[in-house]
Formats: sequence, structure tokens, C-alpha cells
Amino acid sequence: MSGRGVTYAKGFVAGAVSAGVKYGRKERLDVALIWSERPCVAAGVLTKNEVIAAPCLLTRRHLEGGSVRAIVVNSGNANACTGEQGERDAVAMAEAAAARLGIAAADVAVASTGVIGVPLPAQRIADAVREIALDAGGWDDASRAIMTTDTRPKVVEREVPLSRGTVRIGGIAKGAGMIHPDMATLLAFITTDAGIAREALARALGPAVDRSFNAISVDGDTSTNDTVLVLANGASGVAVGADDEEAFAAGLATVCRDLALEIVADGEGVTKVYEVRLSGAASESDARLAARTITNSNLVRTAIHGADPNWGRILAAAGRSGARVRSDRATIRIGDVAVFDRGTPQAFDDAAVRAAFAASRIVIAVDLGVGSGSAVAWGADLSAEYVRINADYTT
Amino acid sequence: MSGRGVTYAKGFVAGAVSAGVKYGRKERLDVALIWSERPCVAAGVLTKNEVIAAPCLLTRRHLEGGSVRAIVVNSGNANACTGEQGERDAVAMAEAAAARLGIAAADVAVASTGVIGVPLPAQRIADAVREIALDAGGWDDASRAIMTTDTRPKVVEREVPLSRGTVRIGGIAKGAGMIHPDMATLLAFITTDAGIAREALARALGPAVDRSFNAISVDGDTSTNDTVLVLANGASGVAVGADDEEAFAAGLATVCRDLALEIVADGEGVTKVYEVRLSGAASESDARLAARTITNSNLVRTAIHGADPNWGRILAAAGRSGARVRSDRATIRIGDVAVFDRGTPQAFDDAAVRAAFAASRIVIAVDLGVGSGSAVAWGADLSAEYVRINADYTT
Repeated sequence: MSGRGVTYAKGFVAGAVSAGVKYGRKERLDVALIWSERPCVAAGVLTKNEVIAAPCLLTRRHLEGGSVRAIVVNSGNANACTGEQGERDAVAMAEAAAARLGIAAADVAVASTGVIGVPLPAQRIADAVREIALDAGGWDDASRAIMTTDTRPKVVEREVPLSRGTVRIGGIAKGAGMIHPDMATLLAFITTDAGIAREALARALGPAVDRSFNAISVDGDTSTNDTVLVLANGASGVAVGADDEEAFAAGLATVCRDLALEIVADGEGVTKVYEVRLSGAASESDARLAARTITNSNLVRTAIHGADPNWGRILAAAGRSGARVRSDRATIRIGDVAVFDRGTPQAFDDAAVRAAFAASRIVIAVDLGVGSGSAVAWGADLSAEYVRINADYTT
Repeated sequence: MSGRGVTYAKGFVAGAVSAGVKYGRKERLDVALIWSERPCVAAGVLTKNEVIAAPCLLTRRHLEGGSVRAIVVNSGNANACTGEQGERDAVAMAEAAAARLGIAAADVAVASTGVIGVPLPAQRIADAVREIALDAGGWDDASRAIMTTDTRPKVVEREVPLSRGTVRIGGIAKGAGMIHPDMATLLAFITTDAGIAREALARALGPAVDRSFNAISVDGDTSTNDTVLVLANGASGVAVGADDEEAFAAGLATVCRDLALEIVADGEGVTKVYEVRLSGAASESDARLAARTITNSNLVRTAIHGADPNWGRILAAAGRSGARVRSDRATIRIGDVAVFDRGTPQAFDDAAVRAAFAASRIVIAVDLGVGSGSAVAWGADLSAEYVRINADYTT
């Protein structure tokens, strides 16, 4: 997708600058600013880790205030486990952005990603924020400035036709892979020119995140800094009425899913992405539990890496997930090939299974044989490269 | 430990034979029989996976009957996901052992480990059981016959002094590593010559398993066949009175822990074992949750592999475990070195940390800064070798 991400929706501008956050050397873009020229409503989903980074605590407070219209982000330092100084530094970032934009600090969301437990160079960041040039072309720089171990920027956009006209939704994200000493952090920033009430925006975001960022797994870990934000400024002139809420939510969910899939595909050491289509569960929550356990299982992930139709590992992962499983009625398909059918192991064509594993997105369909609950999750293979990346000791 | 494992306690004999379970070729010992010449009481902990192998279902029923005094085991085939034929095959194994020993089939426990979804060669196993020579020297053969990907047998024994005399407890186990297409299965068989009531034996076994086999993690997966059994035959002439229950339980727990630690150390691709001493939790269950999440985290495991004092990953794993964490009061030590002290990152001596990582068992102490709950868990590093072993496609 060659779009404009966070500036695809009308009335949003962005930019990025190099502040030398990590090493003091201005080698790469590491501070981004996203701004709506008009007032916004905003919603967010922040890390559920008990250890919460300072910027997440601040952003949560600012979202409760309800008029966030700017996002300032740095990579290279997570400002996590940094104590009271970290809280002051997050405020300083918000204040620098507010001064740059002529708005209140309470209207700025703050996000950070990078090394944990190291004081943030807040002054360098504040100085840099003052220099950021903002325009509609700044989406590309912004999408690069938030990267850590990502090998490429993640940029997504969609037009969503509603009954009163068409609105735009776009977003950028960074991935959940990690490399020492950085923490895995998922950041996603989404903008829309829809006119929507804050409550409706929050109602749409929750399920969208649940079926996208919460349905992907690269290594099963959750960072202290995970942040998904959506800003809506109404610049399209199209209001999202009650009759359009569902269509808007579907559009937002698609943007979230596309960003999430780009994150999985760009995970550390990832060579294959697989989709788990879970059906026949006792409930939707059982389905989600089973699907996510299958995407988190190291044994399944190594089997996928080796193109190994090891349905026993898939069934056993479902069985230990906490979901109800009827192994005498369960079915497992890899691509179009049933390897286990209503409780019975199948003799299958090796070539057909290999073809299914060669697909750009491997599809594994699992029916638990219990009820009608269903869910989808996406996972990635586990490679020796992942171990190599994450076992390196920094000197 | 050079002991006698399951025949260390008086009155137990064992033996093993080659039945060619896996390939029809009699290349290795793959069927074992453990027997008490006297009647026993028995207790067991069986897989909590929703997908339960046929031998586990049968053994559960026989344990409810309450007079199990023999265990017949095969490796090379898990008899899991094998439908009604699998149930009949598990019964056939029990009947063959019962015929060999002149007891009722209901007094025989059955366990299987190996490939999943393949019919058990029950006739070959039954024929082999008839040939097994049983004696006190058979512990070694039995400990080898139950191995799958284990590189060495696991044999443990303890004398436990009680108020009325000394009893013996011994055991053998096989590990939780897996290799395609075998399923990870943990099997542990423990025998004691203590005279103990069935209820007291079950009361002792539950916590012992919880603090040993349930506190180790090699890859986070749980098999369809996990089985821990303990048989007590009273041959020592020493009865375990109410006043001795605690001492007996402690002895049993030590045997379980020693077997569990041997399993971790022999996990696939494992080069290092680490112990997580979790304290300061809101409750014991919070402590266990956090300790096990730290031993299951791929990011922590790769850091351990790389001798990397990455306390951020440890703290983040605790934070996502569901346990309460006060990151402003938490402390993390690697060996004797505090890397994070009451909420503050510490400058630490690199050489001291490297020395801590060089220990045969790395100790990581984590205080969550909340309450007084504590727990211990053991984990192993994640190596590229693990991926290699588990990604191999069998042809």
C-alpha cells in the first residue's frame, strides 16, 4: 500500500525529525508529530501490562480529558521503569508539542518505544519537536520515525462509504518484534476525517483492536508501552449517524487488521505468516482462546517453520488453551487438506500439504467440534533467526 | 544419582522389553512394567489437556477403583486421538499386564508416549509384556524404555526418616521435550514402601506435583498424555501416621522436584537451567503466575541463552502475567547482583553478572513489591537448536 497513512484523512498533517534519542547522534528520524488542524475526538487502547510506561499513563489521562488532537512519539527510548523523572519527561514531551502547535498540553497524546530503564533525553526531544515541519506529505517520515526493529514502515488507508458520504481512515504502526535492549512495543496511530461522537469512536475501536492487534502473536509477550490511538476530526463533513456506526466500525477494523498483518509479517525472524480460522467452539471467547494458544505455541510455530503438517501439536495446543475441545469430533485443515477429520487422522497427500505451506499466508482451519463460536488469529513461524536476534548480548 | 529408582523401595520389581512399537523393528526397549508384589494404594495426576489420550482415561478410572499395583508403559506411540480403537488398545495393554502378573486388569495403570494419531500396535505390545522379566534390577531398563527424545534416563531416590522408622521413595521420569512427530509427554512413576492411606497419599501428591512438574517449563506446551503416578505398598512396615504426613509429603515433594529438574536440564536444545525465586507477590497464586510466565517467556529464555541481564524483559513478563506488580517497588537480582532495585535500574558490574550466568543453575530473584506471596519455578533457555529439532519435517 503506497498511501498516505496518517495524513490520508483530510485535515491531518505530520512530520518527523532526528533528535538523537538513543545515542545522542542524529542518525535517523526518531521523533514524530501528528496533528489535526481542527479539534478532534480521540479514543485509545493502552497496554494491559501491570508495568506501565510513563507516556501511557499520561496519554490515558489526556484521553479521559477528551480533546486530544496531536500525538508526539519518540523511538529509541521507552521511558519505562524510569520513575517520577520519567513522568516529568513525558509531560515535557507533551508540553513541547503543545508549544509547537499552540494548543494545551492536555490535548497531546505521548508515546515512546525503545530501551527500557534509561532516562529519556527529554530536553533533546523537546528541542527537536520545535523544529518539526508539519504537512500532508509528512506521513512517510512519521511512519519511519516510529520504527525500532521493523524492517519497513507500516502504512494503511481505506475509504469508507457511509450513507451521507465517504470518509477516510488511515494509519501507521510499528511492530512487536524486539531486540535487546529494546522492549517489544506495538504502536498504531490512526486518523479519520469522519465526524463521530467520542463514545461511538471508542465503541468502534475496542472490537477492532480485539480482532486485529490482540489477535496477532509474534512472540507472546506484551510490552509496557503498547498504544493504539485513533483521532477523528470531522473534516470530511460526513457525520457518522447511528445507522452508519456499523459500517464505520467495519472500516476501522479493516485498517487495524491490515496494520496488524503487516506487523506479523515483519516480526523478527519471521519467514511465514499463518492464519488460524477457529470454529466449532463453545463460545467466541473459547474460540479466541484456542486460536491464540495455537498462534502462541512454540511447537506449532516451529512446525510451521518446517512446513510440517503436525496436527497433533495444533490439537494439543487447543486442548491446553482452556477452551472446550471434542477430540472425537474435531477437524483440522491445512489449506484445503483435511489432516484430521471429525476425530479421525487422515491419510493426506504430501504434495498438497506442501503446496498449502507454500502459500503466502498459510491457512489453518480448526473446528473444535463443540459449538458455533468462531474467531480468527494470526501467527508467525519461529525460526533460529529469532533466537539469534534475541540472544545477542549487547556490549 | 546412581540409584535404583522405582525398585529402590522394598517390594517393587520392574523390567522392560523391546516390542518394536514405533517401526516394528526391535531396536530399543519400548515397553516397561513396574509391579508391587504386595497390594498397593495409588494416586495420580493426569493431563489437564482437553484432548486426553486413551491410556490416561483408562488409568483415571483404575485409580478411582483404588488398588492399582502395576504400571505398564510404552514409548513410541502415544495412543492419543485414536478413537474407540485406542480405548480398546489401552484396555488390551492393561489385560496383558494383568495376565502376566496374575492380577485384575483394573489393578493396572497404563501410560503411553510417542507419536499421536497412529493406531497402537497393541498385539505386539501384549506379546512383549508376556516376556518381560521382572526383578529389583529392572529399574534401569524401565527408565530407558520410557524415554523418547530424552538423552538420558531420569532416576531419583530418597530415604525419608519418619517417627516409626525410615521409608524409601524412588522414581523414574521422562521429559517434556518433543520431536516430530512425537508429542511432549511428561511421565513420572514413583514407588514407596511407606504404609499410607490412599487419601493421605493423594493429599501429599497434589502439592508435590504443583511445586515440581507443574513448576517447570521447557516450551510451555502440555501434552495429551502427561501422567504422574505414585504407588505405596507398605513393605517397609512403617506406617505414616497423621504426625508423619508432613514429613512424608516433604520427601515425596523432593523426589518430584529432583525428577522435574532433571527433565528441565534434559529439555530439547537446553544449555542452561534457571530458577525463578518469586517473592513480594499479592498471593501465592500471583507468585506462581508471575514465576511461570517468566519461565515461559521466549524473550527471557533467549536472553538467558545469550547471558543477557535484560531485566526489562523479566519485569515485563511479570507485568503481563496477571499478577499484581508494583514496578516502583520491584527488585530483580541475577545471582547476587541487583540489576533493578526497588523500582530503580542499577548500574551493575558486568563481570559479576556474567559469573552469575555461568552458574550451573542460574538464580533469578524477583520481588514484585506488593505483598508476601512467594513461589519458585524452573525454566530453560531457548536455543536455535530447539528450533532446529522441532522444525524438521519427517520424510
